[in-house]
Amino acid sequence: MAGKSKSLGTFDAGSIAPFFESKSLAVIGASTDPIKQGGRPVRYSVMSGYKGRVYPINPRADEVQGVKAYPSVGDVPGPVECAFIALPAPAVEGAVMDCAEKGVRAAIIISAGFGEVGAAGRRTQQRIADIGRDAGMRLVGPNCMGLMDVRRNFFPTFAPLFGFNGEERPGIGNISLVSQSGAFGAHAYEMARTRGAAFNKWVTTGNQCDTEISDFVAYLADDKDTEIIMIYFEGCRDPEKLKQAFRMARANGKPVVLLKAGRSETGVKAAVSHTGSMAGSDAAFDGFCRQFGIHRADTTSELMDIAIACSMRKYPSKPRVGLVSISGAAGALMADYAAEVGLDVPPLPRAAQKKLLKLFPFGSALNPIDPTALWGQDMSVLSASLEALIKDGGHDAVVLFGSTIGVNFINIERFKNHIFPVRKKYPKPLIVISMLGSPDLIADWKTEGFQIYEDPRRAIEVVAALAKLGPIARREARPPARPRVPRAFRITPERALSEAEAMDALEKAGLPFAPRGVATSRAGAQRLAAKMGFPAVLKIASRDILHKSDIGGVELGLASKREVGAAYDGILKKAKKAAPGAAIDGVLVAPQIGGGDETILGVSNDPGLGPVVMFGMGGIFVEVYKDVAFRVAPFSRAEAKAMIAEVTGHAILTGARGQAASDVDALADALHRLSLFAAANADTIASIDINPFMVLPKGKGKKGKGRKGRGAVGVDALIEPL
Amino acid sequence: MAGKSKSLGTFDAGSIAPFFESKSLAVIGASTDPIKQGGRPVRYSVMSGYKGRVYPINPRADEVQGVKAYPSVGDVPGPVECAFIALPAPAVEGAVMDCAEKGVRAAIIISAGFGEVGAAGRRTQQRIADIGRDAGMRLVGPNCMGLMDVRRNFFPTFAPLFGFNGEERPGIGNISLVSQSGAFGAHAYEMARTRGAAFNKWVTTGNQCDTEISDFVAYLADDKDTEIIMIYFEGCRDPEKLKQAFRMARANGKPVVLLKAGRSETGVKAAVSHTGSMAGSDAAFDGFCRQFGIHRADTTSELMDIAIACSMRKYPSKPRVGLVSISGAAGALMADYAAEVGLDVPPLPRAAQKKLLKLFPFGSALNPIDPTALWGQDMSVLSASLEALIKDGGHDAVVLFGSTIGVNFINIERFKNHIFPVRKKYPKPLIVISMLGSPDLIADWKTEGFQIYEDPRRAIEVVAALAKLGPIARREARPPARPRVPRAFRITPERALSEAEAMDALEKAGLPFAPRGVATSRAGAQRLAAKMGFPAVLKIASRDILHKSDIGGVELGLASKREVGAAYDGILKKAKKAAPGAAIDGVLVAPQIGGGDETILGVSNDPGLGPVVMFGMGGIFVEVYKDVAFRVAPFSRAEAKAMIAEVTGHAILTGARGQAASDVDALADALHRLSLFAAANADTIASIDINPFMVLPKGKGKKGKGRKGRGAVGVDALIEPL
Repeated sequence: MAGKSKSLGTFDAGSIAPFFESKSLAVIGASTDPIKQGGRPVRYSVMSGYKGRVYPINPRADEVQGVKAYPSVGDVPGPVECAFIALPAPAVEGAVMDCAEKGVRAAIIISAGFGEVGAAGRRTQQRIADIGRDAGMRLVGPNCMGLMDVRRNFFPTFAPLFGFNGEERPGIGNISLVSQSGAFGAHAYEMARTRGAAFNKWVTTGNQCDTEISDFVAYLADDKDTEIIMIYFEGCRDPEKLKQAFRMARANGKPVVLLKAGRSETGVKAAVSHTGSMAGSDAAFDGFCRQFGIHRADTTSELMDIAIACSMRKYPSKPRVGLVSISGAAGALMADYAAEVGLDVPPLPRAAQKKLLKLFPFGSALNPIDPTALWGQDMSVLSASLEALIKDGGHDAVVLFGSTIGVNFINIERFKNHIFPVRKKYPKPLIVISMLGSPDLIADWKTEGFQIYEDPRRAIEVVAALAKLGPIARREARPPARPRVPRAFRITPERALSEAEAMDALEKAGLPFAPRGVATSRAGAQRLAAKMGFPAVLKIASRDILHKSDIGGVELGLASKREVGAAYDGILKKAKKAAPGAAIDGVLVAPQIGGGDETILGVSNDPGLGPVVMFGMGGIFVEVYKDVAFRVAPFSRAEAKAMIAEVTGHAILTGARGQAASDVDALADALHRLSLFAAANADTIASIDINPFMVLPKGKGKKGKGRKGRGAVGVDALIEPL
Repeated sequence: MAGKSKSLGTFDAGSIAPFFESKSLAVIGASTDPIKQGGRPVRYSVMSGYKGRVYPINPRADEVQGVKAYPSVGDVPGPVECAFIALPAPAVEGAVMDCAEKGVRAAIIISAGFGEVGAAGRRTQQRIADIGRDAGMRLVGPNCMGLMDVRRNFFPTFAPLFGFNGEERPGIGNISLVSQSGAFGAHAYEMARTRGAAFNKWVTTGNQCDTEISDFVAYLADDKDTEIIMIYFEGCRDPEKLKQAFRMARANGKPVVLLKAGRSETGVKAAVSHTGSMAGSDAAFDGFCRQFGIHRADTTSELMDIAIACSMRKYPSKPRVGLVSISGAAGALMADYAAEVGLDVPPLPRAAQKKLLKLFPFGSALNPIDPTALWGQDMSVLSASLEALIKDGGHDAVVLFGSTIGVNFINIERFKNHIFPVRKKYPKPLIVISMLGSPDLIADWKTEGFQIYEDPRRAIEVVAALAKLGPIARREARPPARPRVPRAFRITPERALSEAEAMDALEKAGLPFAPRGVATSRAGAQRLAAKMGFPAVLKIASRDILHKSDIGGVELGLASKREVGAAYDGILKKAKKAAPGAAIDGVLVAPQIGGGDETILGVSNDPGLGPVVMFGMGGIFVEVYKDVAFRVAPFSRAEAKAMIAEVTGHAILTGARGQAASDVDALADALHRLSLFAAANADTIASIDINPFMVLPKGKGKKGKGRKGRGAVGVDALIEPL
């Protein structure tokens, strides 16, 4: 089964194609009642004028809704490429077998009562998946709502479509949706419709016994009719496939907008090992989205608004915006929002300001532009402001707050007469209007090429999202690099590693660690400490004692041979008392590292994302402020730098409070190498902690042997095997 | 003028009443054109059936829109209580004089071209304000949109109302709006209308030459028809009046929902002195809102939704919610949102779960309740779930995610038939439905007593806001205490205080400081240090050198008499070099405080809020994480505790990382006393910094002389006079 074998992140697009491109559809469990689940695909095929053949399968009817029916799929005279199965759960396995025998290439199982209802259901679901795999027949579902390819009039779904009499025929758009939840898929369909938008392809994957989200993302990445991919995500089986699918979407210039539940899920396996365990796997998913340029929405309406905005293909070239407002209050609010979402609001050039101030001498022509109440008498102040922003300010994204202009019976036509010509004269820039108005009015303006939002906050959020996704849509932003993972980094931990072994393994991967030695006698410890320089650190060396501090197995700041000797004896005594059966290698001796910034590097093997690397500033910053960043492994040094910059405490590294800047290059190199090591050992390592990892002042680290950037040094390491 | 004299926070409600309760209205500049600014109040009076007398004032017409007109207000035969002035700016001053002469009690000036357009305009505006004050006539505006009292059919405003032919007659609600911006007022009116809600009173205050936001908040606090106060706020002149108005609203059980711009305003005077200067006055305003129980909205739609939700008078008793969803996905999303906004989602009692699981054996009956797709066949699973949450779970706030049920022509009636009876059976609880649907459908459900939101996120936000405002509406939450400010705390700084003087003054107010002495000789410094104990701290003592560290005027951790001597000489030498003209009192000697948590206490005199107290964890936490909390002075110890708990770094004080808990009582006492000191000196002090203020481990501080809670100690203090 797909989920059990190790994936190489490759896809069989040819096997997914029949879900959309089939020329024949069998509806198994076809109902003569057009509003029943098994009746709808037949009704939709008839209403839409589907060009392929439809075969209702119903042993108790000769025809279904005017279409000739067959007792079983085996009885269909011609080939059947795609099947829609709407039977009670107990009958599904037989139907899947019939399909396999008939040579069906793609089967959609909407029936519920499988994996989601317990062990017996899971077993049946597994058998169904096995039948499909053995026959080379791909499956969608079970427990889903089916799918649609609107352009081809292909509607194997029971989602409510077409209205009562076909008056709400689905439109054809350039957004395609992949949703794990059927109900969410239907909800999104309706939200898009009421916003005047439409889907191209739409698929709900349900229990994902065979195909999962990533299969469809990969298919849509190559689908010429799909320009934007919208996703409702819950989880996945195969991290490598998932990453590869998003890489393909990005390589092909398709913005991805995604919604995922699970931020608060209690009991969710933490994405990082215990030092970062307060930040759950949801934070790791956030990091993944940043890494892959996915816009993660917080709400269904944000998901819809951003995707629909993308569908209009007007991406600003820069994260900046020009603002006009008929209300100074709203202008100030929009400037606030712009600052919050990272949009620049630069003032207009002086000459343009002077020109505008001739029109409204008591207004403001900076940006936001406030033409004062003069617009009530003369709406050309609004069109002139828009034009000044576009032409003189060079803005290709402008927002006009029009408030109630659209509901005022006097203003509505005047407003149109002044603003529509600006759109015609400047067809390229993104023009967003925040105003109230009837659905008809809004639709009218949308048709004319404006984006309309009631709330000015959403208007600004949309501009920010489009500015962020623009480089992807223009294919300027390449997919995240996938650095080669050296085979030499592989270790095969059959048991927990001792600290010394963990440091050795990570050092081989190029991570810098403090010099150290394991002493097996008091005198040996003293000799090592003297050689490496005081103050010294002593730690119990035992693969059986992973959490050394907890048993008093660590002594810091030892200033003399005398103190080292006492610490050696004390540590061994405490270790023997606390862990009598532990195999003790001795006591690890190292020089104490001072004068750097304490950070934490971690790795956790996330079930959905594979190895995830965490970075945070040390101690209290991670524990109290949860100030951490995540990326999925492996990643480049550039990505590591983005990750470091994402953490608020980053300012500490760059020299807050007048301190010396730290060697961020060395830190980024270490994170990159840690990601390679994590990727190389994805199948054997559960977690890695390097805590603390000291980042030394820039240019003051010890020089490595030809290796770049060693102004950082790990002081402790813990590797836990799967 | 009101803004110039020191306010005692008292209001003259009798002088505000004529703005709403007048039995006569003169429209000065009345237009025969009913859609002009000067025409509308006449038109609205006629259309609405205003019971009072309307006098159009127009020297060029005998009648205006069918109403007898007069050449000037002086020509009106009877008394004129209220006047609406819609004249060009140059004519306004004369009209105001006429009104004063006629004995008008309240004048509304909508004309623009005053304070907002420069110095000349400001001067005219001041003269107008003076005329009003001298005549005992209150003014609203200039540069506003007027006001309305819908219940009394009183509409002295040019906001677009009534539609083309009166078909959109304003409804009467229990929300009243006070907006500084006229355009925003009109926008809010229209947003409320499209949501099926209505205002009771509505006023736009514009340039606020006389009355300001607080006057109307105070009036509405006592107005029996107003249950919710909605505000668009920009700024105010009189902090004491503002606080008193909000105190009155809260005392009278009226929730306040407020929107304010200015988060990002560049160049905004920082609310706190330099240590907290990264957090602008907007953060102080946030603290003020928390203190006074004001719901501060981020967006116009949030402002409307929360106010309208309040208007339905169904406040949950606790911050908890019961959830039902026809989509597992949306159930998970709602649980996430609930966690984010602090709502508890407790599981149903076991017995209730068992009962529900008989209806949907494969669903989840915990909370969120997921009855699976069975609802498609039998909608009683939804009503039974709702009923179980209300009856068995004891929930008085439930949210049902109904998705597209309302747009599906098959489900729509069935849904109603199952859910409306639950509303009838349980009239008290808050029942929120998140679903899509036509405006008519939504209106239908709202009439039935449901709250409806398209996005489930907003549904959850509304429940959280209502749970927060409930105690205010029920008058369980008293207004914030206003502790007595001791006169003895007043100081009269004629010049900058030296550190020693600042500490002495704050110590008299009960704030604990480290023992210290000022040495004027090397031997004296050594003697003092030896007496107080090593390690010692030496600091230059000079009122002319406020930023001591900058000139090398501070030496820490001095371990011996020898080190103290050297430091004494070094500090004096550096001070004389860096500030040759400075008056030097000597060198301040103090013991170094160790082992506590470093915090920062600050005060800044905010132009809009008066003295604002800031609290933050020391050093990097304030500078990098901007992790600070604000309250306006004075405030109680309980408020201080709430303030401390608001800071993320609060976990450090309560013993994060296994450290001992710190004496938070002592810290709260110090913040409370600092707030008293700040309030006592509101007219003379610009800022106070106590940095660091060390909070010692609980029970380990030195015992004070009968004073409670001295487990904290200030180490440095800076007071800057106004």
